[in-house]
Amino acid sequence: VAADPRAAAAAARVAARTLARLDGDARAAAVDAIAGALLRHADAIVAANALDLAAARSQLAAGLMTPALLQRLEMSRGKLESVAEGVRQVAAMPDPAGRVTLATLLDDGLLLERVTCPVGVLAVIVEARPDALPQIVALALRAGNAVLLKAGSEAQRTSRAIFAAVHDALDGTAVPASAVALLEGREAVTALLGAERDVDLVIPRGSADLVRHVQANTRIPVLGHADGRCHLYVDRAADLGRALAIAVDAKVQYPAACNSIETVLVHADVAAVFVPAVVGALRERKVEVRGDAAACRLAGDLVRPAAAADWDTEYGDLIVNLGVVPDMDAAIAHIAAHGSRHTEAIVTTDEAAAARFTDEVDAAGVFVNASTRFADGFRYGFGAEVGISTGKLHPRGPVGLDGLVTYKYRLTGNGHVVADYVGRGGRKFLHRTLTTDLTTESTGIR
Amino acid sequence: VAADPRAAAAAARVAARTLARLDGDARAAAVDAIAGALLRHADAIVAANALDLAAARSQLAAGLMTPALLQRLEMSRGKLESVAEGVRQVAAMPDPAGRVTLATLLDDGLLLERVTCPVGVLAVIVEARPDALPQIVALALRAGNAVLLKAGSEAQRTSRAIFAAVHDALDGTAVPASAVALLEGREAVTALLGAERDVDLVIPRGSADLVRHVQANTRIPVLGHADGRCHLYVDRAADLGRALAIAVDAKVQYPAACNSIETVLVHADVAAVFVPAVVGALRERKVEVRGDAAACRLAGDLVRPAAAADWDTEYGDLIVNLGVVPDMDAAIAHIAAHGSRHTEAIVTTDEAAAARFTDEVDAAGVFVNASTRFADGFRYGFGAEVGISTGKLHPRGPVGLDGLVTYKYRLTGNGHVVADYVGRGGRKFLHRTLTTDLTTESTGIR
Repeated sequence: VAADPRAAAAAARVAARTLARLDGDARAAAVDAIAGALLRHADAIVAANALDLAAARSQLAAGLMTPALLQRLEMSRGKLESVAEGVRQVAAMPDPAGRVTLATLLDDGLLLERVTCPVGVLAVIVEARPDALPQIVALALRAGNAVLLKAGSEAQRTSRAIFAAVHDALDGTAVPASAVALLEGREAVTALLGAERDVDLVIPRGSADLVRHVQANTRIPVLGHADGRCHLYVDRAADLGRALAIAVDAKVQYPAACNSIETVLVHADVAAVFVPAVVGALRERKVEVRGDAAACRLAGDLVRPAAAADWDTEYGDLIVNLGVVPDMDAAIAHIAAHGSRHTEAIVTTDEAAAARFTDEVDAAGVFVNASTRFADGFRYGFGAEVGISTGKLHPRGPVGLDGLVTYKYRLTGNGHVVADYVGRGGRKFLHRTLTTDLTTESTGIR
Repeated sequence: VAADPRAAAAAARVAARTLARLDGDARAAAVDAIAGALLRHADAIVAANALDLAAARSQLAAGLMTPALLQRLEMSRGKLESVAEGVRQVAAMPDPAGRVTLATLLDDGLLLERVTCPVGVLAVIVEARPDALPQIVALALRAGNAVLLKAGSEAQRTSRAIFAAVHDALDGTAVPASAVALLEGREAVTALLGAERDVDLVIPRGSADLVRHVQANTRIPVLGHADGRCHLYVDRAADLGRALAIAVDAKVQYPAACNSIETVLVHADVAAVFVPAVVGALRERKVEVRGDAAACRLAGDLVRPAAAADWDTEYGDLIVNLGVVPDMDAAIAHIAAHGSRHTEAIVTTDEAAAARFTDEVDAAGVFVNASTRFADGFRYGFGAEVGISTGKLHPRGPVGLDGLVTYKYRLTGNGHVVADYVGRGGRKFLHRTLTTDLTTESTGIR
């Protein structure tokens, strides 16, 4: 455990330089070594977790812990094995850094390239969930970043045991130990949020309150989302059978997830058929439905009237709002006013309606005829995710390896100076676009 | 001129939805119309500018205005024509939005695409420089963004005349008038910086003080740079002739530019030859040289000793720091401590040294054997730029059209639900990567 968070951040900054020059295979080898070490340290990690769990159970008895939190805290041997397998998979993924995404020959011998590179130093603040720690470390290192991890006090013993394994693993690799640091205590959070010079990206993993606290207390970019208020819009041209199945899946399959829906909006033309049908299907699955006036009229006693605040509420539970809209414009306007830019879905067979919805709705995910529950790094094929971001700029949506790199412009010449390009007799730029192979580095100095 | 900045921002948010659904040709046509209108309104714009200039000259006489600011304020007919030509070129550029940069078939009929899309609403704060206004509006609209522009009071009449032309042009196009708004007064800046819900990106164009004020007073992402402290590192394996030419160009060619150098670092192995040579060449061009102890020793009276604060100073003038470093590690560490992540250059014939420098140095531009003065949107071939960003994340470096788009994930299915993929008997994801044509939209609903 790092005693001084600011010193750990400064050391991570230096370590990030070493990481930036390591080739992808060396970083992959370090991540792979972590997977092995987690298994070698399994007894110690599970034993430490048992102590955390025992403490948590006393807290539960005293009303200071929720059953959900207690469940997330658990790190059984089986869970650890699947975590180690996930780390191994991250090691095996293609290197996201060093890709040339733009290449322009500015003039003879003067080559401009945009190259992906690590973001630098990540600060991750995790509540409970010790299983998230190895995954985050793996993603950070695979992409070439140093990482400072502040773990929750309820998982202190488990986190320390995991970090003992991580540092044991790094010992035999090219990655310096200071590239991964474990921090503890609230003061560490304050220190990290103020370390603008040494931290490039803050990733809060926990409650909406944690995310809001982080967002309100730092000038460093924050990756995350405080809210997941997702909507399903059932268009006039919807296949209502699909709409019904998607509404049920998006609400019921895992209501606590951020990508589950909180509101269903139904086009007035299909409301008479769809509202009773979806209310019936949801009530059968014990979902409480809160409707606007039109929905209440169509579904009678099965729907209770929604309060104004309900449309801005993330229930995370078996409750859903149901509204009838006169047209898609009203649905898009409702989503703009009440959504959280996470994931928004339309059900329709009308291609023009689908195109308008996906163009106009401002969210990280815009879905057509599919459940919002697909918004997830694993399901997207990213292998793993450090979180889901509802910001407008990169990284947006579920963030895997590609989200943990940025880019720099690399210009290679042979003594080129700007003065030669100035004035009437000056040289003219070629600006010839070269095709880029997104997976290989370009050539060096000519 | 918009009277209420918050109302203008809310209207811009709505207009951004219209822009997001327009096709690229419609946006290009609107930008092209602006070029035409600027020429039609040329008399009015030049006349308005004459009034601003007259007022500025009185201010200059009263010591309230600098000659440089006065010069930037001027909008002659010739300048306006070249501005209009620049706007026309932006209209002719390829559409940066609607490109599919990742496509994965998650399962039969379930297609995930990452599609570039407009950022949304931009707030641009410009000091003086009325010529920047049409260019910024052109870049914003071409990329599909609404834009709120706060112009400086010294350019008030010119700005109003330009906006009369812009709104005249938009009148006959698919772009709503509320997509482009002119704001005035300090309160407008405060309002914009607080409009988190309706503004997605703030772009300060002006002094370092302006940029720092903006960065310190908003939670909205800021595109820009307060400082341009660029370095030139002359490696032990440098071609010293090239190094000399680059040092002179990067300092002398336009010392006020943010991409000119403030410090030259010389490897000790070549210092005995290079230090006297570069000092001679710079002194000949009236550059004051401030050196560390080693440089002073090697160059004698021609160099005055640098104070500690000099290494953190952006002179923007014919002054340069000169230091001798024992090795490249020291140069990289110096740049990490004193640089501003703008543009950093190495001169070397050693490919390994070049690779280490470009990998390890954390800056938007990392240059090999070329002057830092090439760091510019026009020279990069971007056609134009709204500014240069020293942040770590997108948009980074000189920002043209590609920097004014972000991305969203579009998922298209035919009724897919997550419940089908859960548990032992569940469906498995295909995760088949499809090749993406970066310039075309994908197909629609199946």
